Amino acid sequence: MTDKNTSEQLWTGRFTEATDAFVEQFSASEHFDRRLYRQDIAGSMAHARMLAEVGVLTADERDRIIDGLGQVREEIEQGRFQWSPKLEDVHMNIEKRLTDLIGEAGKKLHTGRSRNDQVATDIRLWLREAIDGILQELMRLQAGLVELAELEADTIMPGFTHMQVAQPVTFGHHLLAWHEMLVRDQGRLEDCRKRLNQMPLGCAALAGTSFPIDREQTCSELGFDRPTRNSLDSVSDRDFAIEFSAAAALVMTHLSRMAEEVILWASPHFGFIDLPDRFCTGSSIMPQKKNPDVAELVRGKTARVHGNLNALLVLMKGQPLAYNRDNQEDKEPLFDTADTLRDALTAFADMLPAMEVRRQACYDAARAGFATATDLADYLVRKGVPFRDAHEIVGRAVRYATDEGRDLGELELDELQQFSNTIAEDVFEVLTLEGSVAARNHLGGTAPAQVRARVAEARDRLRLLMGK
Amino acid sequence: MTDKNTSEQLWTGRFTEATDAFVEQFSASEHFDRRLYRQDIAGSMAHARMLAEVGVLTADERDRIIDGLGQVREEIEQGRFQWSPKLEDVHMNIEKRLTDLIGEAGKKLHTGRSRNDQVATDIRLWLREAIDGILQELMRLQAGLVELAELEADTIMPGFTHMQVAQPVTFGHHLLAWHEMLVRDQGRLEDCRKRLNQMPLGCAALAGTSFPIDREQTCSELGFDRPTRNSLDSVSDRDFAIEFSAAAALVMTHLSRMAEEVILWASPHFGFIDLPDRFCTGSSIMPQKKNPDVAELVRGKTARVHGNLNALLVLMKGQPLAYNRDNQEDKEPLFDTADTLRDALTAFADMLPAMEVRRQACYDAARAGFATATDLADYLVRKGVPFRDAHEIVGRAVRYATDEGRDLGELELDELQQFSNTIAEDVFEVLTLEGSVAARNHLGGTAPAQVRARVAEARDRLRLLMGK
Amino acid sequence: MTDKNTSEQLWTGRFTEATDAFVEQFSASEHFDRRLYRQDIAGSMAHARMLAEVGVLTADERDRIIDGLGQVREEIEQGRFQWSPKLEDVHMNIEKRLTDLIGEAGKKLHTGRSRNDQVATDIRLWLREAIDGILQELMRLQAGLVELAELEADTIMPGFTHMQVAQPVTFGHHLLAWHEMLVRDQGRLEDCRKRLNQMPLGCAALAGTSFPIDREQTCSELGFDRPTRNSLDSVSDRDFAIEFSAAAALVMTHLSRMAEEVILWASPHFGFIDLPDRFCTGSSIMPQKKNPDVAELVRGKTARVHGNLNALLVLMKGQPLAYNRDNQEDKEPLFDTADTLRDALTAFADMLPAMEVRRQACYDAARAGFATATDLADYLVRKGVPFRDAHEIVGRAVRYATDEGRDLGELELDELQQFSNTIAEDVFEVLTLEGSVAARNHLGGTAPAQVRARVAEARDRLRLLMGK
Amino acid sequence: MTDKNTSEQLWTGRFTEATDAFVEQFSASEHFDRRLYRQDIAGSMAHARMLAEVGVLTADERDRIIDGLGQVREEIEQGRFQWSPKLEDVHMNIEKRLTDLIGEAGKKLHTGRSRNDQVATDIRLWLREAIDGILQELMRLQAGLVELAELEADTIMPGFTHMQVAQPVTFGHHLLAWHEMLVRDQGRLEDCRKRLNQMPLGCAALAGTSFPIDREQTCSELGFDRPTRNSLDSVSDRDFAIEFSAAAALVMTHLSRMAEEVILWASPHFGFIDLPDRFCTGSSIMPQKKNPDVAELVRGKTARVHGNLNALLVLMKGQPLAYNRDNQEDKEPLFDTADTLRDALTAFADMLPAMEVRRQACYDAARAGFATATDLADYLVRKGVPFRDAHEIVGRAVRYATDEGRDLGELELDELQQFSNTIAEDVFEVLTLEGSVAARNHLGGTAPAQVRARVAEARDRLRLLMGK
Repeated sequence: MTDKNTSEQLWTGRFTEATDAFVEQFSASEHFDRRLYRQDIAGSMAHARMLAEVGVLTADERDRIIDGLGQVREEIEQGRFQWSPKLEDVHMNIEKRLTDLIGEAGKKLHTGRSRNDQVATDIRLWLREAIDGILQELMRLQAGLVELAELEADTIMPGFTHMQVAQPVTFGHHLLAWHEMLVRDQGRLEDCRKRLNQMPLGCAALAGTSFPIDREQTCSELGFDRPTRNSLDSVSDRDFAIEFSAAAALVMTHLSRMAEEVILWASPHFGFIDLPDRFCTGSSIMPQKKNPDVAELVRGKTARVHGNLNALLVLMKGQPLAYNRDNQEDKEPLFDTADTLRDALTAFADMLPAMEVRRQACYDAARAGFATATDLADYLVRKGVPFRDAHEIVGRAVRYATDEGRDLGELELDELQQFSNTIAEDVFEVLTLEGSVAARNHLGGTAPAQVRARVAEARDRLRLLMGK
Repeated sequence: MTDKNTSEQLWTGRFTEATDAFVEQFSASEHFDRRLYRQDIAGSMAHARMLAEVGVLTADERDRIIDGLGQVREEIEQGRFQWSPKLEDVHMNIEKRLTDLIGEAGKKLHTGRSRNDQVATDIRLWLREAIDGILQELMRLQAGLVELAELEADTIMPGFTHMQVAQPVTFGHHLLAWHEMLVRDQGRLEDCRKRLNQMPLGCAALAGTSFPIDREQTCSELGFDRPTRNSLDSVSDRDFAIEFSAAAALVMTHLSRMAEEVILWASPHFGFIDLPDRFCTGSSIMPQKKNPDVAELVRGKTARVHGNLNALLVLMKGQPLAYNRDNQEDKEPLFDTADTLRDALTAFADMLPAMEVRRQACYDAARAGFATATDLADYLVRKGVPFRDAHEIVGRAVRYATDEGRDLGELELDELQQFSNTIAEDVFEVLTLEGSVAARNHLGGTAPAQVRARVAEARDRLRLLMGK
Repeated sequence: MTDKNTSEQLWTGRFTEATDAFVEQFSASEHFDRRLYRQDIAGSMAHARMLAEVGVLTADERDRIIDGLGQVREEIEQGRFQWSPKLEDVHMNIEKRLTDLIGEAGKKLHTGRSRNDQVATDIRLWLREAIDGILQELMRLQAGLVELAELEADTIMPGFTHMQVAQPVTFGHHLLAWHEMLVRDQGRLEDCRKRLNQMPLGCAALAGTSFPIDREQTCSELGFDRPTRNSLDSVSDRDFAIEFSAAAALVMTHLSRMAEEVILWASPHFGFIDLPDRFCTGSSIMPQKKNPDVAELVRGKTARVHGNLNALLVLMKGQPLAYNRDNQEDKEPLFDTADTLRDALTAFADMLPAMEVRRQACYDAARAGFATATDLADYLVRKGVPFRDAHEIVGRAVRYATDEGRDLGELELDELQQFSNTIAEDVFEVLTLEGSVAARNHLGGTAPAQVRARVAEARDRLRLLMGK
Repeated sequence: MTDKNTSEQLWTGRFTEATDAFVEQFSASEHFDRRLYRQDIAGSMAHARMLAEVGVLTADERDRIIDGLGQVREEIEQGRFQWSPKLEDVHMNIEKRLTDLIGEAGKKLHTGRSRNDQVATDIRLWLREAIDGILQELMRLQAGLVELAELEADTIMPGFTHMQVAQPVTFGHHLLAWHEMLVRDQGRLEDCRKRLNQMPLGCAALAGTSFPIDREQTCSELGFDRPTRNSLDSVSDRDFAIEFSAAAALVMTHLSRMAEEVILWASPHFGFIDLPDRFCTGSSIMPQKKNPDVAELVRGKTARVHGNLNALLVLMKGQPLAYNRDNQEDKEPLFDTADTLRDALTAFADMLPAMEVRRQACYDAARAGFATATDLADYLVRKGVPFRDAHEIVGRAVRYATDEGRDLGELELDELQQFSNTIAEDVFEVLTLEGSVAARNHLGGTAPAQVRARVAEARDRLRLLMGK
């Protein structure tokens, strides 16, 4: 009767037969959770320091553990570490190697914790860092759009509703619409980061521990805002993964909307922009093709991010407390979403500001489609016609012009006066595209002056945030 | 050639044939968006006041519009209003009736705005109010859980992981785990409310308007924090609906977890709680049945809230700017989610605090399943055995006890000593359930003292928030 | 001690207090499941006839039940029936009214069945009929597309990949691509109908019944293919709802793809089609607008059908057998999906065949974008150049022509020969659009002859199926 | 001016700058689509043979291509192949290597096809094989359940509705409920396989090809049922992936329901089964734990399969024809779903038949909870009491027995007669569990005789299908 554990697996005392080989492979997670090794080791170091502080470890044990963990990290980073699915996950792989390296002290590291609080801590540390990286790319994209918006503040293009020409807008204004979406996204990601930055470590399996741990110490060392408040909740909760995934799904949805427009604008029927060849690919069969693949992929990858959010919600629905093994399925969708989002932002932050705007094509497109019909109605209103009546009058004029195959601005005055004798010579001023956009000079409007004002605001905000 | 519009529909000038009857029914939204009538009228009143302020309407026109809108609201609330699908939506129904009531002035109301910014404003106003109502019910549920947690601060029950008995916990601690989830939910809903409280009114169809509108005035009158910054974005954006739906999906997911536990606890094999008859229903065939239907329905309704989130994300994905008719599909899932969430919270705020806890059954259940095995391992650690070895030793003891059909605390000292001669007479203290929970007396731990401390904190917070 | 039940609710014997008023409203389903009244009554009639056949009811009791049920149906159809949420659902509402009408015999109807098998039977009957209606509209749409395809068998338009002009195709061929999708959809709906047409009636609450029922008789009367095989499965299973919802989600996804194309084609930048005014709507502010709302709505409604599928899968996931109240949530998404799908099919079956194709615009669009570059490469291959080299050669020619601002067919022979001296005078034949499409004259290819062959096949198939 | 292509990438002729390095990595798919190498090579071999048959290749070119492809396959299978992301995907990697190996002839292989039809063919071949493998595991699981069902045909356990004891059922009957679900799943997978087995090869980029290809020949060689009918549809269609994913989502949903029950049954509060240690894992902290991880993982993995289905539907929604790069995102969710489903089936086919049923515990559980209350009501009906009145009488008897703390069968005759004087001495026969299950002896009922009959049927069916 010895106090030594000599087996390979770390929980065999109670078992009478070895794990089935297929089950071992089916249930192992080390092939994907090994990605958490840095966070796992940082958490273990903080835990060891705290255990020494409260007298559960000696100073010597602590030092050997910290040294050993440093060595393990080096082995991993140098590709010399032997990962084993037999050891299930990143935690057991590292702990086993630590014990091989430093002996008895290694077996003491798991005092006062469990893999349940350990993994919850690791993922939060990982996601915190991932969000920071994503925010950088998000702001880089914002900055790129703002710069291009300024260059195209005066560029007139058709604004669409229902994919029909609606009213002229400025290209810069359109780019700033994208920018607004991304500013909201940033807020959501920052709120998520704030809410996740609480530390579950010390909650052990589900109930806390009987050792006199000091959670404030590990919390402070790991840069969390505060320890979590309830051990059962702490090992069961995956809100942070879901909240992040929802925020990411919305960013991707925004990127997919931009992608849709880029694809249309780059098509020959719009021809509003030219994408540099380096962002396009060709066809294996059609020699003339130059395809906006990056935008299509971003639009397509939006689907997987939606799917991942869906999977995480389904995963948690109806689970009783506390930890269930279902939760092992939290990591792959989370990793995939964070990677996909970051890559998509990088791709767009590189590509979008490099679009070449074909100003003439944009302008010509805005001249078709009766884009200034609303301006004509507004003109009538200013002359005293109630808006509803003005709307009806212009509608009839448009039907006439359509039949004639001309735009409103191409009709003669007497033709226009058929529809309302309120119309006078000065009408032709409001039928110009330049007049139309310049007139919308209020907060949020499309006038070039407004675009420049918004650019200035946005630039100040980004300068502040990005520390430039 | 007159300036009068005599047709029924409000955009017929340009059209040469009437709308197809099936299309009229297929595309109408008044049967669900009429629910926005209060918000629509409030927005129109603010718009009219602002138009008068900037000189687009006369004071007299403004007053007639305001009075007329008040009258329309009364007609709706008294059930006397004739809704017509021919008029498409809530906006046109109200505007048409207004013009019937007050004549020419009514036709001027739509000056400087469009249904695109109008509906975006209406939904935000509606959702802001819906969130406020939901937050009240959420806090009522939190308060109910906190009160019950205090009553059951000392009640011992088995804590589960993998649905196997893990360690003893206190019932109050378990209820506070639920409470923690709901506190995070509250934060998400509040963040969502903050982000949505920006005003799109004045963005008109997509580009702003050529009238000299004052968006700060309408903003302030309608209680928004500020006007939105970009007209194209403002009429295209449905982020607020998605962010709310994601937050709601997470609340419902939490409620579904509580539901799962309530259903299990109320089953004869657990028997931890008794639900009052008034929250249960019976069977049409089996006379003995008393079913926890409310919890099952809440669990089931979680699915529709997931589905609604999914629908909204899919709806927006890949849509080019600005407004497309697809967006009409935003309202039904949003309304359904808000209603479902509020009702589920009401049901649980009524029912959960009324659960009767069967303390003896909880206690007896915790005595089975070797719930204090971890305490025995911790005991060995405190006597100097490394944790990994202690774990192995206890595992073997459990296997022995399982074969004997006894719990650890029922073994004799010499039987225990078979597994480690480190074990002494004092071991039996750590094998009690009371000792086990009391030992976990750190922030987040399950000890009764911790439960009481958390209850006090939570009560203070709620008192502050609910103004009691 | 009487054998009479005098209470209103049908399961009160075991209960000591009345149902909470909010719970009553929260859990009632009659406001949506009343829609099943015809199926419920048909099932009850068949059940009563069978009970009489096996001696559980007398012939007189049977007759009174059948008559009473007929009377109830009439009351419902004439709008005279008093629905009560207190009676929970359609089943209890009808049974209660029956007993009011015919007395004692009514209380015997529920012998040998339960609401669990009853509702499973009702939904299957309802869905079977709904699918039949949907299949009719699906075939009507197929037929409309086939007719238009024949009319446009020779119309040349650009085929797109990546929204870039790829190769010329015929409009008829494009319409037949849509047709193919819908043929697969039909197969899936028919498979679903076949699999759902099995009868759960007689499985009672979950275990079958102790009465000597004859399930073959009810099965045959209700037109099911056979009785289900396992009572526990029969009351738990909602596969039919999910399989239908998945098939519907795919139909809608197909319709959304058609919608996307209709919207683009109707936009001024494509201008490939004109939609009749009766299928379009206008704008409240922009007098010139004519919007393809029906297509946008169909695209948007696809989202709710995806969401409903999602909801049903989430609903069932992880549910233990047998019936749980969660299942009450199956009906609303199912009804909504069936209604939405049918309406969308009706709208498209009306509208799509009425599109006016602008042949010249289609042809002109195909002439831009180097649509015959692949034909040039194929030409080189036929002259002995390996395909990969031919591809490279043509790519360089395209780059040259792009710089020159001309299409390939507009280059001179000596200019083309710069890239390959294999090119000879006969090259200009392959650079015509007509030559390009006519050359693709194999099964599945875009040649007009192929389109006509496929139209003939499709027409035969539909004639057979639709019995015309 | 040479006809040689010397560049690395296969579509550079038209391009003026190299692909951006990040875009190259972002858009490459070879790291996941290399998995299709066997199918890709088989398709290319069939294509080459056909091209030779119709005179596009010489016999010698064909032979060199076939040999070369064989060599490439060998290199891949021996791990000697150099995959390059620069070459984008599996198709280009293989073609490039082929050309390195055999020279000019390799450049001719791509004649008359495109990657668009090539990948559509590859995936269908892959999925066809994957489905076959899945069907094998599905039938192995069915067979295992059937065998266990026979062993437990007489074992009585409580049947649940709403997680409350409802009526006694037999364990074998319960297992056969699971079997029924899986039989429907098989039908869906077979229907899907049938519908996908049509060949897109020869549809080229989107319009077919100008070479005189013979699609019937490749079709027959590759084992497809027939060539597809429309080239535009063929390169755009991903129905097969979605239909498979929907069928898979439903299988996994069924497995998750079984998992939920296994987890509950293995919990100490039910204790209905014992899982062999080899299918369970332990805890890093709690030495007594033996967790049903395999079942939890299967339940958890259901979520990712739901998410994948969702992703594929979202991916396709609103895509215009024909091929867009979005479609590259089809493979990862499809592969993941097929792998997950197969592994989950393997795990359950291994584990479920190895469950040890604790018959006494099952029996004891059925004795609590008034499981035979319905039998008492049926007894009264047979004595002439209308069912509704009988239900009410028994409800009152249950309330009395609950207060007394006894089951119905433990009441004295005179106590029972308090509720109805119709009750006589023979009542005690119907209150036994054995009597209750034996009485449900109709098609679909829980009687042991029915279980045996269903087992016999199922065994015959499987013997036929599995060829044993």
